[in-house]
Amino acid sequence: MKKNIGAVNALYPTAVVLVGSELEGVINYINIAHVGVIDMRTISISMGKSHHSNKAIKLNMTLSINFPSEDMVVEADYIGLVSGSRVDKSKVFESFYGELKGAPMIKNAPVCMECKVINILDMPNHDVFLVQPLNTYCEEKVLLNGKIDLAAVKPLLFDMHQRKYWKLGEGFANCWSVGNSYKK
Amino acid sequence: MKKNIGAVNALYPTAVVLVGSELEGVINYINIAHVGVIDMRTISISMGKSHHSNKAIKLNMTLSINFPSEDMVVEADYIGLVSGSRVDKSKVFESFYGELKGAPMIKNAPVCMECKVINILDMPNHDVFLVQPLNTYCEEKVLLNGKIDLAAVKPLLFDMHQRKYWKLGEGFANCWSVGNSYKK
Repeated sequence: MKKNIGAVNALYPTAVVLVGSELEGVINYINIAHVGVIDMRTISISMGKSHHSNKAIKLNMTLSINFPSEDMVVEADYIGLVSGSRVDKSKVFESFYGELKGAPMIKNAPVCMECKVINILDMPNHDVFLVQPLNTYCEEKVLLNGKIDLAAVKPLLFDMHQRKYWKLGEGFANCWSVGNSYKK
Repeated sequence: MKKNIGAVNALYPTAVVLVGSELEGVINYINIAHVGVIDMRTISISMGKSHHSNKAIKLNMTLSINFPSEDMVVEADYIGLVSGSRVDKSKVFESFYGELKGAPMIKNAPVCMECKVINILDMPNHDVFLVQPLNTYCEEKVLLNGKIDLAAVKPLLFDMHQRKYWKLGEGFANCWSVGNSYKK
Protein backbone atom coordinates (compact mmCIF):
# COMPACT_ATOMS: atom_id res chain seq x y z
CA MET A 1 0.00 0.00 0.00
CA LYS A 2 1.44 3.31 -1.08
CA LYS A 3 1.07 6.73 0.47
CA ASN A 4 0.00 9.66 -1.74
CA ILE A 5 2.32 12.58 -0.93
CA GLY A 6 0.67 14.94 -3.43
CA ALA A 7 2.05 16.50 -6.60
CA VAL A 8 5.73 16.03 -5.73
CA ASN A 9 8.32 16.08 -8.50
CA ALA A 10 10.28 12.93 -7.74
CA LEU A 11 12.78 13.08 -10.61
CA TYR A 12 15.96 12.93 -8.54
CA PRO A 13 18.88 12.59 -8.46
CA THR A 14 19.98 14.87 -11.29
CA ALA A 15 23.54 15.71 -12.30
CA VAL A 16 24.87 18.99 -10.93
CA VAL A 17 26.37 21.21 -13.62
CA LEU A 18 28.19 24.51 -13.39
CA VAL A 19 26.95 26.82 -16.13
CA GLY A 20 29.45 29.35 -17.44
CA SER A 21 28.54 32.65 -19.11
CA GLU A 22 30.02 36.08 -19.68
CA LEU A 23 28.50 39.55 -19.47
CA GLU A 24 30.42 42.68 -20.41
CA GLY A 25 33.71 40.83 -20.07
CA VAL A 26 32.94 39.37 -16.64
CA ILE A 27 32.90 35.59 -16.34
CA ASN A 28 30.14 34.08 -14.23
CA TYR A 29 29.35 30.56 -13.05
CA ILE A 30 26.18 29.19 -11.49
CA ASN A 31 25.20 25.80 -10.04
CA ILE A 32 22.23 24.24 -11.87
CA ALA A 33 20.74 20.79 -11.28
CA HIS A 34 17.41 21.16 -13.04
CA VAL A 35 18.77 19.73 -16.25
CA GLY A 36 17.76 17.05 -18.72
CA VAL A 37 18.42 15.20 -21.95
CA ILE A 38 16.02 16.40 -24.67
CA ASP A 39 17.43 14.25 -27.46
CA MET A 40 20.80 12.75 -28.34
CA ARG A 41 22.23 16.19 -29.17
CA THR A 42 20.16 18.50 -27.00
CA ILE A 43 20.23 19.31 -23.28
CA SER A 44 17.85 21.42 -21.18
CA ILE A 45 19.18 23.85 -18.57
CA SER A 46 16.41 25.34 -16.41
CA MET A 47 17.26 28.62 -14.72
CA GLY A 48 15.05 30.79 -12.52
CA LYS A 49 14.32 34.05 -14.33
CA SER A 50 15.83 36.15 -11.55
CA HIS A 51 19.33 34.72 -12.07
CA HIS A 52 22.02 37.10 -13.27
CA SER A 53 23.36 34.55 -15.79
CA ASN A 54 20.17 34.49 -17.88
CA LYS A 55 20.78 37.95 -19.34
CA ALA A 56 24.27 37.00 -20.51
CA ILE A 57 23.08 33.73 -22.04
CA LYS A 58 20.26 35.44 -23.94
CA LEU A 59 22.67 38.06 -25.31
CA ASN A 60 25.35 35.59 -26.41
CA MET A 61 23.12 32.58 -27.11
CA THR A 62 25.99 30.46 -25.78
CA LEU A 63 26.90 28.91 -22.44
CA SER A 64 29.20 26.25 -21.05
CA ILE A 65 28.28 23.17 -19.03
CA ASN A 66 30.96 22.01 -16.61
CA PHE A 67 30.77 18.82 -14.56
CA PRO A 68 32.26 19.18 -11.08
CA SER A 69 33.91 16.26 -9.29
CA GLU A 70 33.09 15.31 -5.72
CA ASP A 71 36.16 17.22 -4.54
CA MET A 72 34.71 20.45 -5.99
CA VAL A 73 31.54 20.28 -3.86
CA VAL A 74 32.34 23.37 -1.75
CA GLU A 75 33.00 25.62 -4.75
CA ALA A 76 30.08 24.10 -6.68
CA ASP A 77 27.66 24.81 -3.84
CA TYR A 78 29.14 28.27 -3.18
CA ILE A 79 28.47 29.57 -6.68
CA GLY A 80 24.81 28.63 -6.16
CA LEU A 81 24.64 30.62 -2.92
CA VAL A 82 25.70 34.03 -4.21
CA SER A 83 24.52 36.05 -7.21
CA GLY A 84 26.84 37.28 -9.95
CA SER A 85 25.00 40.60 -9.75
CA ARG A 86 26.55 41.28 -6.32
CA VAL A 87 29.64 39.02 -6.14
CA ASP A 88 32.37 38.55 -8.73
CA LYS A 89 32.57 34.75 -9.08
CA SER A 90 35.06 34.88 -11.98
CA LYS A 91 37.99 33.93 -9.70
CA VAL A 92 36.39 30.90 -8.02
CA PHE A 93 37.74 28.78 -10.88
CA GLU A 94 40.46 29.17 -13.49
CA SER A 95 38.79 29.47 -16.89
CA PHE A 96 39.61 28.55 -20.47
CA TYR A 97 37.82 29.07 -23.79
CA GLY A 98 37.12 26.92 -26.81
CA GLU A 99 35.60 28.26 -30.03
CA LEU A 100 32.55 30.06 -28.68
CA LYS A 101 32.37 33.57 -27.26
CA GLY A 102 30.50 33.86 -23.97
CA ALA A 103 31.14 30.27 -22.92
CA PRO A 104 34.06 30.21 -20.46
CA MET A 105 34.89 26.73 -19.13
CA ILE A 106 36.40 25.52 -15.84
CA LYS A 107 39.97 24.23 -16.02
CA ASN A 108 39.74 21.78 -13.15
CA ALA A 109 36.34 20.35 -14.09
CA PRO A 110 36.95 16.89 -15.59
CA VAL A 111 34.38 17.38 -18.38
CA CYS A 112 33.27 20.65 -20.03
CA MET A 113 30.97 21.37 -22.96
CA GLU A 114 30.77 24.61 -24.92
CA CYS A 115 27.19 24.92 -26.15
CA LYS A 116 24.97 26.93 -28.46
CA VAL A 117 21.46 27.85 -27.33
CA ILE A 118 18.98 26.62 -29.97
CA ASN A 119 15.74 27.57 -28.20
CA ILE A 120 14.42 28.98 -24.92
CA LEU A 121 11.25 27.62 -23.29
CA ASP A 122 9.38 30.35 -21.46
CA MET A 123 8.03 28.73 -18.27
CA PRO A 124 6.24 30.85 -15.61
CA ASN A 125 9.31 31.33 -13.40
CA HIS A 126 12.10 29.74 -15.44
CA ASP A 127 13.96 30.21 -18.70
CA VAL A 128 14.69 26.73 -19.99
CA PHE A 129 17.67 26.89 -22.34
CA LEU A 130 17.78 24.12 -24.94
CA VAL A 131 21.43 23.80 -25.86
CA GLN A 132 23.64 21.66 -28.08
CA PRO A 133 27.33 21.06 -27.47
CA LEU A 134 29.76 22.19 -30.14
CA ASN A 135 32.75 20.62 -28.39
CA THR A 136 33.24 18.47 -25.29
CA TYR A 137 36.57 18.71 -23.48
CA CYS A 138 37.71 15.95 -21.10
CA GLU A 139 40.67 15.19 -18.92
CA GLU A 140 42.44 12.16 -20.39
CA LYS A 141 42.14 10.37 -17.05
CA VAL A 142 38.32 10.31 -17.29
CA LEU A 143 38.33 8.56 -20.69
CA LEU A 144 37.98 4.79 -21.04
CA ASN A 145 38.21 3.41 -24.57
CA GLY A 146 37.74 6.98 -25.82
CA LYS A 147 34.48 7.47 -23.93
CA ILE A 148 33.71 9.20 -20.67
CA ASP A 149 34.08 6.98 -17.58
CA LEU A 150 31.73 8.23 -14.87
CA ALA A 151 33.66 6.33 -12.19
CA ALA A 152 36.60 8.63 -12.93
CA VAL A 153 34.49 11.79 -13.30
CA LYS A 154 32.95 11.28 -9.81
CA PRO A 155 29.94 13.52 -10.61
CA LEU A 156 27.87 15.36 -8.02
CA LEU A 157 24.26 14.22 -7.87
CA PHE A 158 21.53 16.51 -6.56
CA ASP A 159 18.53 15.57 -4.44
CA MET A 160 15.83 18.19 -3.82
CA HIS A 161 13.95 15.97 -1.34
CA GLN A 162 16.60 15.85 1.37
CA ARG A 163 18.65 18.74 -0.09
CA LYS A 164 21.72 16.57 -0.35
CA TYR A 165 24.59 15.94 -2.75
CA TRP A 166 25.22 12.28 -3.45
CA LYS A 167 28.13 10.37 -4.92
CA LEU A 168 27.76 7.96 -7.81
CA GLY A 169 27.80 4.34 -6.67
CA GLU A 170 28.98 1.28 -8.57
CA GLY A 171 28.18 0.32 -12.15
CA PHE A 172 26.45 -3.04 -11.87
CA ALA A 173 24.64 -3.99 -15.09
CA ASN A 174 24.81 -3.42 -18.85
CA CYS A 175 22.04 -1.51 -20.64
CA TRP A 176 20.18 -3.17 -23.53
CA SER A 177 21.65 -6.41 -22.26
CA VAL A 178 20.81 -7.41 -18.66
CA GLY A 179 17.11 -7.54 -19.61
CA ASN A 180 17.74 -10.42 -22.00
CA SER A 181 17.74 -12.78 -19.02
CA TYR A 182 14.04 -11.93 -18.47
CA LYS A 183 13.10 -13.40 -21.81
CA LYS A 184 14.58 -16.84 -21.11
CA MET B 1 45.32 19.85 -20.89
CA LYS B 2 41.97 18.55 -22.05
CA LYS B 3 41.11 16.41 -25.04
CA ASN B 4 38.31 17.54 -27.37
CA ILE B 5 36.11 14.50 -28.04
CA GLY B 6 33.68 16.40 -30.29
CA ALA B 7 30.03 17.25 -29.81
CA VAL B 8 29.34 14.58 -27.18
CA ASN B 9 26.34 14.96 -24.90
CA ALA B 10 27.94 14.39 -21.48
CA LEU B 11 24.85 14.87 -19.31
CA TYR B 12 24.96 11.51 -17.50
CA PRO B 13 23.99 9.82 -15.29
CA THR B 14 20.24 10.33 -15.57
CA ALA B 15 17.55 8.59 -13.55
CA VAL B 16 15.92 5.62 -15.27
CA VAL B 17 12.13 5.80 -15.25
CA LEU B 18 9.52 3.34 -16.42
CA VAL B 19 6.81 5.19 -18.32
CA GLY B 20 3.32 3.67 -18.15
CA SER B 21 0.59 4.20 -20.75
CA GLU B 22 -2.50 2.44 -22.05
CA LEU B 23 -3.82 1.95 -25.60
CA GLU B 24 -7.18 0.30 -26.30
CA GLY B 25 -7.21 -1.23 -22.83
CA VAL B 26 -3.68 -2.67 -23.06
CA ILE B 27 -1.17 -1.48 -20.46
CA ASN B 28 2.34 -0.75 -21.70
CA TYR B 29 5.61 0.18 -19.99
CA ILE B 30 8.83 1.49 -21.49
CA ASN B 31 12.27 2.29 -20.05
CA ILE B 32 13.25 5.95 -20.58
CA ALA B 33 16.34 7.71 -19.26
CA HIS B 34 16.35 10.83 -21.40
CA VAL B 35 14.48 12.80 -18.79
CA GLY B 36 14.85 16.14 -17.06
CA VAL B 37 13.51 18.70 -14.62
CA ILE B 38 11.98 21.64 -16.53
CA ASP B 39 10.79 23.54 -13.46
CA MET B 40 9.65 22.68 -9.94
CA ARG B 41 6.42 21.13 -11.24
CA THR B 42 7.36 20.01 -14.73
CA ILE B 43 9.36 17.04 -16.04
CA SER B 44 10.52 16.22 -19.57
CA ILE B 45 10.26 12.68 -20.94
CA SER B 46 11.98 12.28 -24.32
CA MET B 47 10.76 9.38 -26.42
CA GLY B 48 11.87 8.35 -29.91
CA LYS B 49 8.99 8.89 -32.33
CA SER B 50 8.97 5.25 -33.38
CA HIS B 51 7.98 4.03 -29.90
CA HIS B 52 4.60 2.37 -29.52
CA SER B 53 3.88 4.28 -26.28
CA ASN B 54 3.86 7.71 -27.95
CA LYS B 55 0.54 7.10 -29.69
CA ALA B 56 -1.18 6.18 -26.42
CA ILE B 57 0.27 9.17 -24.58
CA LYS B 58 -0.85 11.59 -27.32
CA LEU B 59 -4.37 10.15 -27.23
CA ASN B 60 -4.76 10.20 -23.44
CA MET B 61 -2.46 13.16 -22.68
CA THR B 62 -1.51 11.24 -19.52
CA LEU B 63 1.31 8.91 -18.50
CA SER B 64 2.87 7.51 -15.36
CA ILE B 65 6.48 7.77 -14.22
CA ASN B 66 7.68 4.86 -12.09
CA PHE B 67 11.08 4.69 -10.41
CA PRO B 68 12.58 1.20 -10.39
CA SER B 69 14.84 0.01 -7.59
CA GLU B 70 18.17 -1.69 -8.24
CA ASP B 71 16.50 -5.08 -7.74
CA MET B 72 14.18 -4.35 -10.71
CA VAL B 73 17.08 -3.89 -13.16
CA VAL B 74 16.30 -6.99 -15.24
CA GLU B 75 12.63 -6.10 -15.77
CA ALA B 76 13.49 -2.41 -16.25
CA ASP B 77 15.99 -3.22 -19.00
CA TYR B 78 13.73 -5.85 -20.58
CA ILE B 79 10.87 -3.42 -21.23
CA GLY B 80 13.34 -1.23 -23.12
CA LEU B 81 14.38 -4.16 -25.34
CA VAL B 82 11.00 -5.15 -26.77
CA SER B 83 8.25 -3.05 -28.37
CA GLY B 84 4.70 -2.96 -27.09
CA SER B 85 3.59 -3.21 -30.74
CA ARG B 86 4.84 -6.80 -30.87
CA VAL B 87 5.02 -7.97 -27.23
CA ASP B 88 2.39 -7.63 -24.51
CA LYS B 89 4.35 -6.11 -21.60
CA SER B 90 1.28 -5.62 -19.42
CA LYS B 91 2.15 -8.65 -17.25
CA VAL B 92 5.80 -7.76 -16.54
CA PHE B 93 4.57 -5.76 -13.52
CA GLU B 94 1.43 -5.71 -11.42
CA SER B 95 -0.34 -2.40 -12.04
CA PHE B 96 -2.55 -0.03 -10.10
CA TYR B 97 -4.34 3.20 -10.96
CA GLY B 98 -4.78 6.55 -9.28
CA GLU B 99 -7.11 9.24 -10.58
CA LEU B 100 -6.01 9.48 -14.21
CA LYS B 101 -7.08 7.30 -17.11
CA GLY B 102 -4.25 6.00 -19.28
CA ALA B 103 -1.65 6.19 -16.49
CA PRO B 104 -1.19 2.70 -15.00
CA MET B 105 1.46 2.54 -12.27
CA ILE B 106 3.77 -0.25 -11.09
CA LYS B 107 2.92 -1.81 -7.73
CA ASN B 108 6.43 -2.82 -6.75
CA ALA B 109 8.10 0.42 -7.83
CA PRO B 110 8.92 2.40 -4.67
CA VAL B 111 7.84 5.75 -6.16
CA CYS B 112 5.21 6.37 -8.86
CA MET B 113 3.78 9.58 -10.32
CA GLU B 114 0.58 9.91 -12.32
CA CYS B 115 1.07 12.82 -14.71
CA LYS B 116 -0.74 15.06 -17.16
CA VAL B 117 0.95 16.04 -20.41
CA ILE B 118 0.96 19.85 -20.66
CA ASN B 119 2.97 20.20 -23.88
CA ILE B 120 4.87 18.18 -26.46
CA LEU B 121 8.14 19.43 -27.98
CA ASP B 122 8.54 18.28 -31.55
CA MET B 123 12.22 17.42 -31.99
CA PRO B 124 13.49 15.85 -35.25
CA ASN B 125 13.39 12.26 -33.98
CA HIS B 126 11.79 12.59 -30.53
CA ASP B 127 8.52 13.59 -28.93
CA VAL B 128 9.45 15.35 -25.70
CA PHE B 129 6.51 15.15 -23.32
CA LEU B 130 6.39 17.96 -20.76
CA VAL B 131 4.39 16.51 -17.87
CA GLN B 132 3.24 17.52 -14.40
CA PRO B 133 2.48 15.08 -11.60
CA LEU B 134 -1.05 15.09 -10.21
CA ASN B 135 -0.18 12.62 -7.44
CA THR B 136 2.99 10.92 -6.23
CA TYR B 137 2.66 7.53 -4.53
CA CYS B 138 5.45 6.19 -2.33
CA GLU B 139 6.12 3.12 -0.24
CA GLU B 140 6.20 4.19 3.42
CA LYS B 141 9.68 2.66 3.77
CA VAL B 142 11.16 5.18 1.29
CA LEU B 143 9.92 8.21 3.25
CA LEU B 144 12.11 10.03 5.74
CA ASN B 145 10.47 12.91 7.63
CA GLY B 146 7.68 12.77 5.05
CA LYS B 147 10.04 13.23 2.10
CA ILE B 148 11.52 10.75 -0.33
CA ASP B 149 14.77 9.15 0.84
CA LEU B 150 16.86 8.20 -2.20
CA ALA B 151 18.99 5.83 -0.11
CA ALA B 152 15.85 3.75 0.40
CA VAL B 153 14.59 4.12 -3.19
CA LYS B 154 17.89 2.77 -4.60
CA PRO B 155 17.29 4.33 -8.05
CA LEU B 156 18.80 3.08 -11.29
CA LEU B 157 21.13 5.57 -12.95
CA PHE B 158 21.77 5.46 -16.69
CA ASP B 159 25.05 6.10 -18.49
CA MET B 160 25.03 6.33 -22.29
CA HIS B 161 28.83 6.51 -22.52
CA GLN B 162 29.63 3.04 -21.21
CA ARG B 163 26.01 1.80 -21.55
CA LYS B 164 25.83 0.92 -17.90
CA TYR B 165 23.39 1.10 -15.02
CA TRP B 166 24.86 2.57 -11.85
CA LYS B 167 23.79 2.55 -8.22
CA LEU B 168 23.47 5.70 -6.16
CA GLY B 169 26.42 6.18 -3.80
CA GLU B 170 26.46 7.94 -0.45
CA GLY B 171 24.97 11.30 0.46
CA PHE B 172 27.92 13.38 1.58
CA ALA B 173 27.08 17.10 1.73
CA ASN B 174 24.14 19.46 2.23
CA CYS B 175 22.95 21.71 -0.61
CA TRP B 176 22.80 25.50 -0.10
CA SER B 177 25.00 24.87 2.94
CA VAL B 178 28.38 23.20 2.31
CA GLY B 179 29.38 26.16 0.12
CA ASN B 180 29.24 28.53 3.08
CA SER B 181 32.69 27.28 4.11
CA TYR B 182 34.10 28.82 0.90
CA LYS B 183 33.16 32.30 2.03
CA LYS B 184 35.06 32.16 5.31
